[in-house]
Amino acid sequence: MSNLAKVAKARAEDSVDTLLARRNALMGPNAPLLYESPLYLTEGRGVWLFDDKGRRYLDAYNNVPHVGHSHPAVVEAVTKQLGMLNTHSRYVSKVVLDYHEQLLSIVDLPQARGVLTCTGSESNELALRMARHITGHAGIIVTDYTYHGNTAAVAELSTAFDVNPTGLPNYIRAIRAPALPPKVQRGEGSPTEETLKAAYLKEVKDAIAYFDSHGIGVAAILLDPIFSTDGLPDVVPGFVKEAVELVHQAGGLYIADEVQPGLGRCGETWWGYQLHDAQPDIITLGKPLGNGYPVAGLIGRAEIVDRFRSEVMYFNTFGATPVACAAGSAVLQVIERENLIDNARETGSLMLRKLSELTSKHDCIGDVRGKGLFIGVELVEKGGRYEPDSKMAKRVIEGMRNEGVLISKIGKYDNVLKIRPPMPFTAEHVTQFVDSMDLVLSNLR
Amino acid sequence: MSNLAKVAKARAEDSVDTLLARRNALMGPNAPLLYESPLYLTEGRGVWLFDDKGRRYLDAYNNVPHVGHSHPAVVEAVTKQLGMLNTHSRYVSKVVLDYHEQLLSIVDLPQARGVLTCTGSESNELALRMARHITGHAGIIVTDYTYHGNTAAVAELSTAFDVNPTGLPNYIRAIRAPALPPKVQRGEGSPTEETLKAAYLKEVKDAIAYFDSHGIGVAAILLDPIFSTDGLPDVVPGFVKEAVELVHQAGGLYIADEVQPGLGRCGETWWGYQLHDAQPDIITLGKPLGNGYPVAGLIGRAEIVDRFRSEVMYFNTFGATPVACAAGSAVLQVIERENLIDNARETGSLMLRKLSELTSKHDCIGDVRGKGLFIGVELVEKGGRYEPDSKMAKRVIEGMRNEGVLISKIGKYDNVLKIRPPMPFTAEHVTQFVDSMDLVLSNLR
Repeated sequence: MSNLAKVAKARAEDSVDTLLARRNALMGPNAPLLYESPLYLTEGRGVWLFDDKGRRYLDAYNNVPHVGHSHPAVVEAVTKQLGMLNTHSRYVSKVVLDYHEQLLSIVDLPQARGVLTCTGSESNELALRMARHITGHAGIIVTDYTYHGNTAAVAELSTAFDVNPTGLPNYIRAIRAPALPPKVQRGEGSPTEETLKAAYLKEVKDAIAYFDSHGIGVAAILLDPIFSTDGLPDVVPGFVKEAVELVHQAGGLYIADEVQPGLGRCGETWWGYQLHDAQPDIITLGKPLGNGYPVAGLIGRAEIVDRFRSEVMYFNTFGATPVACAAGSAVLQVIERENLIDNARETGSLMLRKLSELTSKHDCIGDVRGKGLFIGVELVEKGGRYEPDSKMAKRVIEGMRNEGVLISKIGKYDNVLKIRPPMPFTAEHVTQFVDSMDLVLSNLR
Repeated sequence: MSNLAKVAKARAEDSVDTLLARRNALMGPNAPLLYESPLYLTEGRGVWLFDDKGRRYLDAYNNVPHVGHSHPAVVEAVTKQLGMLNTHSRYVSKVVLDYHEQLLSIVDLPQARGVLTCTGSESNELALRMARHITGHAGIIVTDYTYHGNTAAVAELSTAFDVNPTGLPNYIRAIRAPALPPKVQRGEGSPTEETLKAAYLKEVKDAIAYFDSHGIGVAAILLDPIFSTDGLPDVVPGFVKEAVELVHQAGGLYIADEVQPGLGRCGETWWGYQLHDAQPDIITLGKPLGNGYPVAGLIGRAEIVDRFRSEVMYFNTFGATPVACAAGSAVLQVIERENLIDNARETGSLMLRKLSELTSKHDCIGDVRGKGLFIGVELVEKGGRYEPDSKMAKRVIEGMRNEGVLISKIGKYDNVLKIRPPMPFTAEHVTQFVDSMDLVLSNLR
C-alpha cells in the first residue's frame, strides 16, 4: 500500500519530456499519441483547450465534447446524479426512461426501442449480433476504408488504420464509398451521376451475390451515412436508398452508424441517415452522446430488438445507468437551448465558403466539402496531377498545431484534413481557423 | 424539437406501474429487470439503496459501487476533473499517468503495461485479441459456466445465462470449474484433492490436445480466479498453477479476469490471481474500478502489449480519459484510507461464520463458502439428497428483497446465493443480513 502513497506525491517539476518518459514506461512506447511534439493539456473550455503553459488551442477536431469542453450544464447534471444514485439498468429509474424517450423522440423510426451500451464499439458489436441473429446470415457489407470500433467483430470490418492486419474474412465484403469526384473534376467528359451510381451499386450486387453463392447470406449493410473515415466525400445521390433496397431484398438489414454524423453535427437533421431517403433498421450511437461521459447505444425496430432480447440475454453494466442518462439528457437540452444544430448549419456553411475561397490561392487544395460542422479539405500534389498528398496533410496538421489550431486527417489516402470541432463553433472561430490555414499553407509553399 | 420539451415535463404521478409500462415501450418488454416486483430506486448511500417511497434496502449484491453508493470522494474527484478537462488519451495527461502508475504499483507483475478501456467486455475482448495475435493460435480454454462479457468474441465463450444460444465453436473448449465438493461431502470415501486435481487437469490437457490436433493451437486459458459465475467453489489447491503451466508449455497465455474478484474484494490481496501461485500474462479489469464511472482495462506483460501495439492500431475513445482516471484514483485512495481490504477480510469472515451457523438450523443450506466480501450459499433440496434447488434460490432472493436485502444467484444450477456487497459492509450489516436470511428461510420451510 505504501507504493500508492508514493505515487500520489506531488511532482512539481513535471515537464512534457518527463511525462512522456513515464508514459512510455506505463502505457508502452506504442500507445497512440497525436503530433510530433505531443500536447500536454490541462484544461478545456468550450472550443478551447489549454496546455500546461497556459497556451490555448482552438479545437477543430474533437467531437466527443459535442456541446463544448467542460460544459457546465453537463458537469452539473452528472455531479447531481452521481451524488444521488448510479446503478445498472435492472432496476426501474425515471431518468433512464426520460432519456430513452427523448432519444426516441428525435429518431423518426416508427415502433423503435432503445438499447443503451457504454461505447460506440459495443453499439456496433450489438447491432451486428442482432443482424446476424435475426437474419440467420453472417455477411456484412461495409465501405473499404471504414472504421466502426475496436472490438474483434467490428475491428475485422476495417481496412483503415492497421486495425485489422489479417485482412477481411470471407463474410465481410468491402465496397468503395459512393463518392462523387472532387468538384473540379466534374462536368463535361466525366462520368454522370447515373453512371457512377450504377458502378457503385454493382459492387453491392456483387457482394450480395458472393454471400449467396457461398452460403453466407447478407446480414447487413453497415454504413456511416456521411462516410467520414472514407474521406467525407460528396455522396452519389440515390446510392444509399437503392443499396439499402438491394440489401433488404436479399434479406439483410441496414445499420446506420451515427457515431460521427449523429446528434446534429451535419447541421440539417439530428442524424446522418436522414440526409438519404432510406430508413435504417438499426442506428448505432456513440462518442458525442454524453459530452465525454461514456454513453452509447442503438435504436432499432421493435420487432428486431424484442426478438433478440427474448432469445439472447444481453446486459451491459455501464449502459443505461442513471448518470449516463442524466449526461445524455443534459446534452440534448443544451443542443436545443443553444440552437446548436442551426449553428452547425450556419457556421459550417461559412467555414465551407471561406475554405473554398482559399482554393484559388493554394493549389494544393483539391476539394473542400462536408456537411454542417464536419468538413474535409482534400490535399493534392501541385501541378494539376491531382494525386493525393498525405505528406502535405501531415505537415498542415503539424503546422496548424503550431499555430494553435487542432485538426486531424481521414480518407483512404490519408490526405483529407478532418475538421470536426465542438458544436459551439462560431464565425469568430472560423475566421481564426481560416486565417491560420491560409498562413500555414503559405508557409508550406 | 418540441417533442423534447414535452418529454422533459415533470410527471408528478409516476408509479412503478406507469414506469414499467413506459419501460416496456421504450426499452422493450424483454430488457432485463430484477425481481418479480421490480425496484424503483431513487437514491443510494454507502451500502444502502432507497426506493421512491423512502424504503431502504441493504445492498448485498452490487459490486460496481465498490467503495459505497455515491461515495463523496469519488463524486468530488469526477466533478472536479469533469469541470477541468476530459479528452481521449492521445494527448499527455498527468492524471492519466498517475492512475496507471497507481494501478501498476498494486499489480505485482514485473515489466507490465496498462491499457485502459471503458468496459470489462472491452478488456476481455482486447486480451483475447492480444493473445491470439501474439501466439498465432485461436483456441481459448474457459470454464463451463463462465461469463466474460457481452461482445461477440467474449459472449461466444459463455454457456451461462443464454448469452450464446449457438453453443461453443470449435476454437473454444470449456472445462469444469476446479471445484472441491461442498464441505459436508468431503472426508472419508470421497475423492482426494490429488485425484480431483488430476481429473480437472486432464480436461485442460484434453482441450490443448484437441486444439493441437485440429490445427487451432491454444491462445489462452481465461479464468476468473475465484470462478464467480461458476458458483464460487472452493478451488482444488494447485490446479490453477498446474493448468497455467500446461497452457504455457503449449504456447498459450494465462489471462486472469479480475472484473469480479479484483480490487481487494477477496480480503487478502488486491487481486484474485494472487490467491493462486501462478502469474498471469494479462489481467483484465472492469466493473468496480470507477465506483460506477465507466473505467476498465488490462495490465499485461510489456513484451505482449508492446508487440501488439506496434502491429495493431488499438484506440479506445473513452478509455484512459482524465475523468476515468480521476475516478479510478479516488477509488484506490478510498480503499486505502478506509482500510477496505482489511474490512473485506474481517467482515467477510464474520459473515461466513454466521451464515455457516445457519446451516444446522436450515437443511436447505448445502454449503457456505467464499473469500472476503464475496460469499456463496448453496441451496439444496431437503432430505439429504443434495440436489441443487434453484427454485428455492429464487424464492430466497425474492424473500430477502421483501425483507429489504438485495442479493442474487450464480452457479451452473442457478442455486448459489450470490452475496457481493459494496466494500464498506460492517458487522452491523452482517447481523441484519443474517437475521433476514434466517427469517426468510424459516418462512420458506
